[in-house]
Amino acid sequence: MSKRVFRMAASGVIGVFGANGFIGRHVVRRLAAEGARVIAFGREFPADFHDAVGRGVETRRVDINDELETHVTLQGITHVIQLINTSNPAMANRRVVSDLQLNVVPQVSFIESCIMAGVRNFVFISSGGTVYGIPQQSPIPETHSTEPLNSYGLCKLMVEHYLSMLSRGTDLGYTILRVSNPFGPGQVSYKGQGLIPAVLQRAAEHSPVTIIGDGKTERDYIYIEDVVDAMVSCLKREPLCDIVNIGSGRGRTVLEVVEAIEQVLGRPIERHFTEGRATDTPSNVLDVSKAARLLDWHPKTDFHEAVRLTVASYPLEKAS
Amino acid sequence: MSKRVFRMAASGVIGVFGANGFIGRHVVRRLAAEGARVIAFGREFPADFHDAVGRGVETRRVDINDELETHVTLQGITHVIQLINTSNPAMANRRVVSDLQLNVVPQVSFIESCIMAGVRNFVFISSGGTVYGIPQQSPIPETHSTEPLNSYGLCKLMVEHYLSMLSRGTDLGYTILRVSNPFGPGQVSYKGQGLIPAVLQRAAEHSPVTIIGDGKTERDYIYIEDVVDAMVSCLKREPLCDIVNIGSGRGRTVLEVVEAIEQVLGRPIERHFTEGRATDTPSNVLDVSKAARLLDWHPKTDFHEAVRLTVASYPLEKAS
Repeated sequence: MSKRVFRMAASGVIGVFGANGFIGRHVVRRLAAEGARVIAFGREFPADFHDAVGRGVETRRVDINDELETHVTLQGITHVIQLINTSNPAMANRRVVSDLQLNVVPQVSFIESCIMAGVRNFVFISSGGTVYGIPQQSPIPETHSTEPLNSYGLCKLMVEHYLSMLSRGTDLGYTILRVSNPFGPGQVSYKGQGLIPAVLQRAAEHSPVTIIGDGKTERDYIYIEDVVDAMVSCLKREPLCDIVNIGSGRGRTVLEVVEAIEQVLGRPIERHFTEGRATDTPSNVLDVSKAARLLDWHPKTDFHEAVRLTVASYPLEKAS
Repeated sequence: MSKRVFRMAASGVIGVFGANGFIGRHVVRRLAAEGARVIAFGREFPADFHDAVGRGVETRRVDINDELETHVTLQGITHVIQLINTSNPAMANRRVVSDLQLNVVPQVSFIESCIMAGVRNFVFISSGGTVYGIPQQSPIPETHSTEPLNSYGLCKLMVEHYLSMLSRGTDLGYTILRVSNPFGPGQVSYKGQGLIPAVLQRAAEHSPVTIIGDGKTERDYIYIEDVVDAMVSCLKREPLCDIVNIGSGRGRTVLEVVEAIEQVLGRPIERHFTEGRATDTPSNVLDVSKAARLLDWHPKTDFHEAVRLTVASYPLEKAS
């Protein structure tokens, strides 16, 4: 694999935007470890960033709202992974207009800047958990209708559309990855995103886990390193100029996830049930056969092993 | 029909937004003529507005960018026809970001204002000619994928999504009409929209008609009064909360349209061919069977009769 990465690196420079997030740190570390020429872009890099991704990684501060700064910083970048997102699903629809202005508008400008800078391969991380809305079939294929129930999903869907539309007739190729629910070491729950870190945080505090609804809500959990595999695969090949689901292809309920964590911890976690969010869909499981076909990608990590790795990385002792 | 309109009028007030446009004037005149309680909303109303729609029609100046003004003016309005659009297809993709900011953002705010004001029935005029992109089948059903090739179509698609998403769990019902290429008396060509008025203008000037491409580009032309029928049908029934194509269901090439106008004029029109727009799709014809099923609507006006009515209304003598 590193041989192929080397070929990619020899002919290009990969810019990871939103590099300091949960997904960003994992993909930057992987690319750097494989010898790729990678530059981490973000608004800020905390002291622990290089501990997480490796000492030698180049970082560049950029705010994509600043079009001129973005234009300058993109010079020489041939491959982009776009992870920047200022919204999150837990905000639901409380700030729809500002989501448009603060999230979609700069992302559209960013795509235009990438075209002007000569970027050739643009990997956009979209949301398989929100762009489809209520599934009419399960697992959900990429051809399923897109009727997002929240502003987060709709903003992702719009950026997908802009990427497809603006890249027509230009040198910018792209692949859109509609990722389900990624989890793994380093994911934090402070933005309301991520069931597993939320459960771990409560477990560390020995306080009850808040379960929205009856706990039967089903999601498609995918280990972060499998998601990184898919992104790396996109960087290594000609852009598909297409949309591909990335998930485990299997649904698990909230209660199943809590039980899996209990198994690893070896102790019970108290459950506290509250009313469901109006914008939630009861089930979301992705059909990932297209990724197998076009990216030669398969989810590799067993769910229980992935939970074990995640729990092992979590500082549970802090609360004991 | 007027009896049914009376029932609607007795229980509601219809606000037509963008009332001074081509479609707006036709629908306001029809509603007023049928005795409905209709208020025409727009940024400005020229001196000839009441000549076109009827003396007694109430007008209100409003700029939907002004949220407070919009909120106040919406009080008491139960039915809305939304025709406001600050973009047009001929602009293609030259101002994508400003289209988002100046077009989509105020329309999303407008939908939120309508929900707060208690509007129950919202008819949104979308674009059957642009939201689908390149047809994978013809005629195009509403279930066809939506891959707009230009900013105009993408903005329309986004507003559709916001309407569907924001109305969930509220009293706002809606119907989205994806209208093909409307034409008829009163349509002007100054925005680059509308083949028929463009041809008529050139014919009046005795100058050649500019045909983009080879003239085989096929569109679905629908007479304006048939479009008004569909809008009135939406106002008279419970909102479908769904998307419906409105068109003739039949394709005609640019050359066929020019020939139809020549027939009515009784004289030839010179053709001047230029290169095609990159964002054009060669064919766009809508499947209108859903409108027949759900709105009991059918295109009634024969194309050649519609062209005759349009030509008859055009001041051709001015150039002779």
